[in-house]
Amino acid sequence: MQKLFNDPKSVVDESVSGFVMCYKDYVAHTSCSRTLKWLPAPISGKVGVVSGGGSGHDPAFMGYLGKNMLDAVAIGDIFIPPSAESFYTAFKEADSGNGVVCIYGNYPPDTENVEAAIKLAKKDGIIVEQIVVNEDIANDDPEVRRGMTGEVLLWKISGAAAAQGYDLADVLRVTEKALSRMRSIGIGIASCIIPEVGRPNYVIEPGTMEIGVGHHGISSKDTCKLKTANDSADIMLDEIFRDMPLESGSKVAIMVSGLGNTTLSELTILYKRVHEMVTARSIDIHRSYIGNYFTSLDMMGATLTILNLDDELIELLDLPAFPAAFSDFSFS
Amino acid sequence: MQKLFNDPKSVVDESVSGFVMCYKDYVAHTSCSRTLKWLPAPISGKVGVVSGGGSGHDPAFMGYLGKNMLDAVAIGDIFIPPSAESFYTAFKEADSGNGVVCIYGNYPPDTENVEAAIKLAKKDGIIVEQIVVNEDIANDDPEVRRGMTGEVLLWKISGAAAAQGYDLADVLRVTEKALSRMRSIGIGIASCIIPEVGRPNYVIEPGTMEIGVGHHGISSKDTCKLKTANDSADIMLDEIFRDMPLESGSKVAIMVSGLGNTTLSELTILYKRVHEMVTARSIDIHRSYIGNYFTSLDMMGATLTILNLDDELIELLDLPAFPAAFSDFSFS
Repeated sequence: MQKLFNDPKSVVDESVSGFVMCYKDYVAHTSCSRTLKWLPAPISGKVGVVSGGGSGHDPAFMGYLGKNMLDAVAIGDIFIPPSAESFYTAFKEADSGNGVVCIYGNYPPDTENVEAAIKLAKKDGIIVEQIVVNEDIANDDPEVRRGMTGEVLLWKISGAAAAQGYDLADVLRVTEKALSRMRSIGIGIASCIIPEVGRPNYVIEPGTMEIGVGHHGISSKDTCKLKTANDSADIMLDEIFRDMPLESGSKVAIMVSGLGNTTLSELTILYKRVHEMVTARSIDIHRSYIGNYFTSLDMMGATLTILNLDDELIELLDLPAFPAAFSDFSFS
Repeated sequence: MQKLFNDPKSVVDESVSGFVMCYKDYVAHTSCSRTLKWLPAPISGKVGVVSGGGSGHDPAFMGYLGKNMLDAVAIGDIFIPPSAESFYTAFKEADSGNGVVCIYGNYPPDTENVEAAIKLAKKDGIIVEQIVVNEDIANDDPEVRRGMTGEVLLWKISGAAAAQGYDLADVLRVTEKALSRMRSIGIGIASCIIPEVGRPNYVIEPGTMEIGVGHHGISSKDTCKLKTANDSADIMLDEIFRDMPLESGSKVAIMVSGLGNTTLSELTILYKRVHEMVTARSIDIHRSYIGNYFTSLDMMGATLTILNLDDELIELLDLPAFPAAFSDFSFS
C-alpha cells in the first residue's frame, strides 16, 4: 500500500491530532477524543450546529468547523459511525442554552447513535433537533436514500441562519427547506483503499464506471462503459432533473465535488458541461463550487449537487463562513 | 485511462473555460486564451503581481487569482511553459502604471519566455521585475534548484505588499527576502499520468519512494524503501534544516502540500510529526497550511515548505487574501 501512514490503525487519531495542531487558534479538543469543537463555541444566544460521521471523507467533518458553520463534530473510524458519546459531547460543546441542530447523513447506524446521544442530552436539558440528510438520488426509494455532498451546503445554510439569530425552530425550518430543494448524484471510476484493509474493498473494472455511486462505493444504479466528462455530466443532470424538475428562471447553487483522487481539472471540465446545460435551460446559476468537499478516501469520481434557491436561501448562502479547511488565506 | 476527460488534447482549454464559468464574478478571460486576470485588475496605484507556468499543478496557477494575491496568470500546456505572448498579456493586464513583479519557478524554458515577454512589455513602457523561485533543495547546486510549493507563499506575501501600497522596488525587496528565507523538499510515492500520454511517464516501484522529487517527478536525490509518515517527515526536516539552520526562538510558517492523489489525512499525519519536531527545537510556528496547494497531476506524495519569518513577513502573511480556489465560502 503506497500511503504516507505510520500505522493503518491510528490514521484517524493521528489526523485528528495533527488537525488541531495546525488549526490550534480555531479548533479545540474536548473531553471526548473523537469530538472536536470550534474554539469559541458555544456562542451565547446562538443555536448550535453539529455534524458528524465516519472518517475517510476529508475535509468532512472536522474541516467544516468554524465561524458561521459547524460548532462541533463527532468523528468515527473510517466509514464507521461516531459513538453516541462522541455525538453527546458535541451537543454539550455546541449548546449555549438555545438548542442544537444535528445535520448528518442517512445511514441507520449513525441514526442509532445520534438518537441515543439525543436522549442523554435531554437529561441535561439540552434540546437537539436532527436533520437526516438523504439527497443522494441513486436509490429510487426516498426512505433509503443516503446523505451526500449536499450536507456541506446544509451546514453552510444552517450555520448562517444560526449566526444571524434564527431560533431553533427556524434553523430547523430553513435547513429542512434547503434539503427538500436539493439533489445529488455520484459517479465512480475507481474504488478506494481502506487503510486497515490495504486494498480496494470493491472493484470498478478499468474501462467502466458506476453511475449512482455513494460515499462508501455502494448503492450504484448502473455499471456502464466509461463515458466522457460531457456524457457523464449529462447523465447526472438528467437524473437530477427527473427527480427535481426546475422551471426556467429558477436560481440554483451547484457543487461539483471530487471523491478524492480526481484532479481539479477533471472536476472543472465536468462543471463546464453542467454550467452550459443548466444555463441552456434558462436557469440562473447564483453560485458554484468546484473542489474536494466530501471525499471517499482515494476514490476516483465526482458528485454533483444542485440546490434550488429562494431569496432566503440566497441570503444565507451568501453570508461568508470560515470553515477551517477552506480558510487558509483568509481566517477571520 | 480512468479519467473524466472529453479529449486529452483539450484538458487545459476546457478547464480554463470551466474555471472562468465557475468564478465568473472574480476572474476573466483576456485577449490571450491562455492568460486570465483577476476581474478588477489592474488596480490603480498598485504594483501588479503575476505568475504562470505549465498546467497540471492545480490549483496553481489560476486558482490563486484574487484580491491581495495574483492579478494575472499565464497558462501553459501540461508541464509545458506558457508562451511569451501569454506572459506579455498578463503583464499588460496587471499593470496600472506602477510596474509588475513576475514570480515563477526556475525552469529555463519558462525563463526564456518570461524574458521575451519582459522585452515586449518594455516597449509599451511597462516595467517588469522577475523573481525566479528556486527554493526546492533537492539539488545541492543552488543554480539549478527548482521552484516548488513555496511559490504560493511568495504570491501571498507579494500580493499583500502590493495591496498595502509598497512600490515596485519594495515588493521586489520583500519577496526576495522571503525567498532567501524559505526552503522546500518533496517526496514521491507514486507517479502521475499525463493525459496525452495516458500512462505514467516514469515509475516509482511499489514499496519504494523518492526523496527530493520535483513537481514534474524529476531531480530526485534518493530512491529508498517506502518509509512511515514520521520517518518521511524527519528526513524532509533534516534536509531543510541542514540547508537553512534555524535558531531556537525563530518564527516560521509551514506548508504541507499534497502532490494530487494524497489524502488530507496523510498530509495531516505528516504535518503532525513536522509540528512536533519543529516545536521540539523551540521554534515558534506562527501559521500552518495543510492541503493540495501545488500538485503534480495525480501524483502521490507531498512537499514540505518552511519560511523563516520576521516582523514584516508576519504582517504581510497575516493580511487576508481571497484566491479564487480557496474562497468558496468567504468571497470578498
